[in-house]
Amino acid sequence: MKEINFRGRKVLITGGLGMIGSSIAIRLRQLGADITILDAELPMYGANKFNLEPIRGQVKMVKADIRDRRSLEQLKWDFDMIFNLAGQVSHNDSIENPYLDTEINYLGQLNVLEQARKKNPKARIFFSGSRLQFGKIEAVPVAENHPQHPLTPYALNKNAAENLHLFYHHIHGISVVVFRIANPYGPRGQMKHSKYCIVNWFVRQAMEGKTITVFGDGKQLRDYIFIDDLVEAMLAAMSSPQAGGEVFNVGSGVGISFQDMTALVVRTVGRGSIRHVGWPADYINVETGDYVSNIQKLCRLTSWRPRISIEEGIRRTVAYFRRHGCHYF
Amino acid sequence: MKEINFRGRKVLITGGLGMIGSSIAIRLRQLGADITILDAELPMYGANKFNLEPIRGQVKMVKADIRDRRSLEQLKWDFDMIFNLAGQVSHNDSIENPYLDTEINYLGQLNVLEQARKKNPKARIFFSGSRLQFGKIEAVPVAENHPQHPLTPYALNKNAAENLHLFYHHIHGISVVVFRIANPYGPRGQMKHSKYCIVNWFVRQAMEGKTITVFGDGKQLRDYIFIDDLVEAMLAAMSSPQAGGEVFNVGSGVGISFQDMTALVVRTVGRGSIRHVGWPADYINVETGDYVSNIQKLCRLTSWRPRISIEEGIRRTVAYFRRHGCHYF
Repeated sequence: MKEINFRGRKVLITGGLGMIGSSIAIRLRQLGADITILDAELPMYGANKFNLEPIRGQVKMVKADIRDRRSLEQLKWDFDMIFNLAGQVSHNDSIENPYLDTEINYLGQLNVLEQARKKNPKARIFFSGSRLQFGKIEAVPVAENHPQHPLTPYALNKNAAENLHLFYHHIHGISVVVFRIANPYGPRGQMKHSKYCIVNWFVRQAMEGKTITVFGDGKQLRDYIFIDDLVEAMLAAMSSPQAGGEVFNVGSGVGISFQDMTALVVRTVGRGSIRHVGWPADYINVETGDYVSNIQKLCRLTSWRPRISIEEGIRRTVAYFRRHGCHYF
Repeated sequence: MKEINFRGRKVLITGGLGMIGSSIAIRLRQLGADITILDAELPMYGANKFNLEPIRGQVKMVKADIRDRRSLEQLKWDFDMIFNLAGQVSHNDSIENPYLDTEINYLGQLNVLEQARKKNPKARIFFSGSRLQFGKIEAVPVAENHPQHPLTPYALNKNAAENLHLFYHHIHGISVVVFRIANPYGPRGQMKHSKYCIVNWFVRQAMEGKTITVFGDGKQLRDYIFIDDLVEAMLAAMSSPQAGGEVFNVGSGVGISFQDMTALVVRTVGRGSIRHVGWPADYINVETGDYVSNIQKLCRLTSWRPRISIEEGIRRTVAYFRRHGCHYF
């Protein structure tokens, strides 16, 4: 009965011009929600106005930065639900610029939570954490209680922001849902650079007939989740009362090696090639080893299941960017 | 051969006017170190110039706040060692004022680490985390790998700052040592209010002949570590090369119930009385249950052992404040 839950509901999506934010917005419009998008449109991340093309004119747009408390104070905060997705997204950049990462990924989240606490503690809040919170992986698949030894400011700020959301839940009674997301990809993901959303970057490289660079032997397992599966997971959790105050590891639940993913991209596009080079120090130092999500907790609590295989997901991604690539690269 | 390690060494102590900072300063002066004290002298915490009376004129003093990057940039950063002890210290206050806690306990630490990275990555850094990082305790004694589910901004910021120190160790090669400290008490601890350093607060209450308030039945176990034992633990770890990049749970290793500690204070002082009241919501909500440190890791790595029993520690605390109480309350 998901539809009932979202029809007419007021929803705020921070970072709503990015891949995840815009995809959830489009789906929520289909379900009849009343949507406000907040985005700072920072050039190095995935904000792209074209992402909202299918619902143009059907959402409210606020250009604001979650780091700016005064801008946040000017919102009405009459939302039923907040998808708190604004973020600095590059794991590697956070090594060089820990202040920026902290200001967006931790203090920015604190700003959103404080506004919600003061003005509307009844809104349910979704927070997007990361598989990188775990750091070095001891064994796959990775369940929620795997130790967290985050290796970068990005990862440790996601960990801190998760703890912050749980604090607002336990002490201030705000219902929060936290996902630690594996590697999402698909339509609307940014393709300007290789710093995150790597499947999308490789799709672009292949479409341009370029040589894709893989670090090391490429045998490390990753868990790539297609954006539509991620969106359905978010809706399933946000419509489940039992999910309040809970943390979920969310991915496809299936591991594929980095090199197999790359080969699949090249095969699907029908262009491009692959070369292997040694790991650069700033990558190998924060490499986590194999990662596959254990998604049993969310599957037990809801009827959600991932439905799109990596083959189908890459097909759909290539098809989207064949049609709309000019808006992305 | 501890003495050799500290003679002539340049040491920065942030928060050096507090109980732990001043006690380590006094001990390091005995061992021949060259000490710079940095302290913001914030009125609500434990900074007290009288704390450094025994080494008056023998240390450099800098009045500066670790939140202020510009002040930190003006230091020479030619230290061999940094004891990074400046902090917001009230677990409960952090619930009401998460910004203040984050600015001091997380961003302030980031400022110190960034200065060290840029100007002197060879300095070894000590960071004082807290037992409160663990949140609800599953079983005592608590070892380092106990899950961390911090319940307040104070606890989660200590957790984030610990992760930050470990990041600077692993990626930037700065040797750090992290303690998660149980409940320290003793000479030089603040007695202005009950928000932390509770043994000291109770000593004052008893000395003033007042009634000490205990929440609930007072049966929860705590691990109180006498300041001299804590100082020796810090020196032992900071002189051990193997301690670099390591986290240690540090306490007395012995649990005593809250009510037994309180009764011991009243008995030792020979005045005061005790009454039990219900738990206030803002305390019970973040109560962790029994806590006792498992101190085996530090004991295995060094020759350090706690030497002062709670009876002896409270005797020494009472004796100190009988003599010097006028400087504290």
